Amino acid sequence: MGKTDWKTEAKALKEKLSRAKRRLRDMAGGEEAPAAPAAPGKTKAAPALSPLAPASFPDLPEIAGARFAVAAAGVRYAGRTDVMVATLAPGSTLAGVFTRSATRAASVLDAQAKIGRGLTAPGGAAIVVNSGNSNAFTGRAGVISVAEICAAARTAFGVPEGAVLTSSTGVIGEPLPHARIADALGPMALRLDSGALAEAARAIMTTDTFPKGAAAEVAVEGGTIRIAGIAKGSGMIAPDMATMLVYIFTDAAIAAPALQKIVARAADRTFNCITVDGDTSTSDAVIVAATGRSAAAPLLDMRSVSARAFADALGDVMRDLAWQVVRDGEGATKFVEVAVTGAADDSDAHRVAMAIANSPLVKTAIAGQDANWGRVVMAVGKSGAAADRDRLAIRFGPHVVAENGARAPGYDEAAVSAYMRAQDLVIGVDLGLGRGARTVWTCDLTHGYVSINGDYRS
Amino acid sequence: MGKTDWKTEAKALKEKLSRAKRRLRDMAGGEEAPAAPAAPGKTKAAPALSPLAPASFPDLPEIAGARFAVAAAGVRYAGRTDVMVATLAPGSTLAGVFTRSATRAASVLDAQAKIGRGLTAPGGAAIVVNSGNSNAFTGRAGVISVAEICAAARTAFGVPEGAVLTSSTGVIGEPLPHARIADALGPMALRLDSGALAEAARAIMTTDTFPKGAAAEVAVEGGTIRIAGIAKGSGMIAPDMATMLVYIFTDAAIAAPALQKIVARAADRTFNCITVDGDTSTSDAVIVAATGRSAAAPLLDMRSVSARAFADALGDVMRDLAWQVVRDGEGATKFVEVAVTGAADDSDAHRVAMAIANSPLVKTAIAGQDANWGRVVMAVGKSGAAADRDRLAIRFGPHVVAENGARAPGYDEAAVSAYMRAQDLVIGVDLGLGRGARTVWTCDLTHGYVSINGDYRS
Repeated sequence: MGKTDWKTEAKALKEKLSRAKRRLRDMAGGEEAPAAPAAPGKTKAAPALSPLAPASFPDLPEIAGARFAVAAAGVRYAGRTDVMVATLAPGSTLAGVFTRSATRAASVLDAQAKIGRGLTAPGGAAIVVNSGNSNAFTGRAGVISVAEICAAARTAFGVPEGAVLTSSTGVIGEPLPHARIADALGPMALRLDSGALAEAARAIMTTDTFPKGAAAEVAVEGGTIRIAGIAKGSGMIAPDMATMLVYIFTDAAIAAPALQKIVARAADRTFNCITVDGDTSTSDAVIVAATGRSAAAPLLDMRSVSARAFADALGDVMRDLAWQVVRDGEGATKFVEVAVTGAADDSDAHRVAMAIANSPLVKTAIAGQDANWGRVVMAVGKSGAAADRDRLAIRFGPHVVAENGARAPGYDEAAVSAYMRAQDLVIGVDLGLGRGARTVWTCDLTHGYVSINGDYRS
Repeated sequence: MGKTDWKTEAKALKEKLSRAKRRLRDMAGGEEAPAAPAAPGKTKAAPALSPLAPASFPDLPEIAGARFAVAAAGVRYAGRTDVMVATLAPGSTLAGVFTRSATRAASVLDAQAKIGRGLTAPGGAAIVVNSGNSNAFTGRAGVISVAEICAAARTAFGVPEGAVLTSSTGVIGEPLPHARIADALGPMALRLDSGALAEAARAIMTTDTFPKGAAAEVAVEGGTIRIAGIAKGSGMIAPDMATMLVYIFTDAAIAAPALQKIVARAADRTFNCITVDGDTSTSDAVIVAATGRSAAAPLLDMRSVSARAFADALGDVMRDLAWQVVRDGEGATKFVEVAVTGAADDSDAHRVAMAIANSPLVKTAIAGQDANWGRVVMAVGKSGAAADRDRLAIRFGPHVVAENGARAPGYDEAAVSAYMRAQDLVIGVDLGLGRGARTVWTCDLTHGYVSINGDYRS
């Protein structure tokens, strides 16, 4: 054999390398895999923007009576804001729904107790949120941290401690450096600004790949009601928790118990109908504050046209934010709606829909663009809900794949496979038993999810 | 700049390529990623042997009165056996436990009805199992397939149809080519052999990476009772189902209802305590057959020393097979025992243990060798079981990481991280509430799992 032709060799290697890189990108769900485990304490590179992210952050209207400020308190992250404050004018009302976890964080227990069945704040209210540390599973020290932050908020913003709500998101089990947050509040009081809600959306991000906001305006008797909200979740890099936090502000005038009822009902159809991996954070919180500063007439009768229009608009904002959380699901490449109908009742429909949306087998099949309806059958069967195999019908988008307990006669594998390549998918299941129905939303399970959550911490 | 030094360039590229290949291997959980989606209909390469596989297949004792045969019927696979038959001598008793799925396969419904609370077979019995097609969600045609196979077994083996049990595992939703199986049975009758159980273990594999067998001998009053069993699961490549099938044979003499009770109780502590991904097959079945041919005295009193020794030995064989299923979990690189104590009752302990064992966040952390106990706290919280954050204690192996609702004072991250590099791990959780306890077994969630289940089918 002659001398090695290094040029030809180099070209062949270059091609092989680019193929290998392409495969790596595919496996990581669009991201390059990390070259090596991150060293402990080192900051990881920000994850690439989710392919499901909206084109841009929406314009959020200002809400009279609500002001915001952010600060870089160095709770854990360097070089970014990590505390946000919202203050609400005297006379505001607040409602909230929280994680049902038995191991929920001290801030959640505190906020839950204060909100009860709706909180009226004649002396005004404040919401203080930090990222970087969840203050979860921190025992007695965690309770003290919450009390210290509430006391500092009273001093800084002149609101009673009973109307200060806190949330923390980030690493679990490490003492919260609450003094850094408390010390930041005084200076923040001087910067409060009704136009700073978008900045607040960035301050509460942990490993989200995009800030999340949504708004609505609704014309009702006497004027316009404005609604603007922000959310964070479900990005996560070990050891952070995938906490979902949501804060929504409106200038509607509405009594606290009525607001609480509307929020609880809407949460059941929005935030309680999304899942990324079936795991529930110890810190999830959705808080809605109404300042009453709109020119519109107060919402007194919940059956009135105005109250219903407000409830619908608030529900829309909540659903929009919930969808954004799914669209930022760890490693997600597909947004999936699971619509269950024909269940014995709504609760059975919810069980079936969640069994499908949480099934690792269904979610990996979707990642692989595989019209694997057998796994949907499996998930229906294991859900525990009443189901009759011989009445079951399944569709992927417009394509009926199974009916009457067997593969649909007109099943066209090529057409269904083509459909599975879309970014947004609908899986429809009809149980053929009754009128129970529920729709939930999820994403696929990809190599990106395993990379994000399985990276070496040490 | 001078002329390109192609030799240096080639060397640099070679190094980059080998780094990229190493990363690909890491991401695929030890396997090279597939270069391209498999074409439909093409057979995929056999998956690499699980790193958790036992060193060798055990020696299985012959069970008097039980004979086996295998055949290559071409149900779906080419070039391998895919049907196994077991025949049991007249006077045998049979017991079984089955999937609780609401969409279970026709063969499961049939076997379940025949076994009832224990099946006595004065005319002998037969078990016919095929791999390659699960006959699940095949409607009326599936019921006919089962009846045809049972009728052919009656002819071939001379046993009544009421004592023929069938199982099918493999692709879902496609009509079972039952004639291929029925036609194979006659020739198999001529080859029945009490030493062919190991071959049977291979014939029922789908995407298992190793055949699974276990045995025990127990000296009791009058002689020795022998137990030998085989299992398949949980390997899976789309579109197969991860069905678990288990067949155990013993020469014990025991009445069918007593055997059924022992099997059901043992299954609750073994097969019902394992999970790979929380998804439940439509075809899971565990069948135990006792031929009564041992020299030992019949087991008449279930409280006797002999009966207890037999029940213990059978339980050991069942646990051994259950562990082997977990050790062949898709993409598994770690075998994990989750031991929950101090729960309000056993049922709560089971909920907590399964919530931990099924949590994608816990399982990816284990894959990453990350001592992320915060995710264990999260899983306890979401389980729905009674839990008091401030009494919770968590250990990884011998290392207490959390107690009394906070990180353990002596927590040593380096020591715990070193422990997480072991292949077999124990996560211990004490809820500090009562005497409820349960131990379950699972594996980690790796890139290998996503590759196996997310590969393109078309």
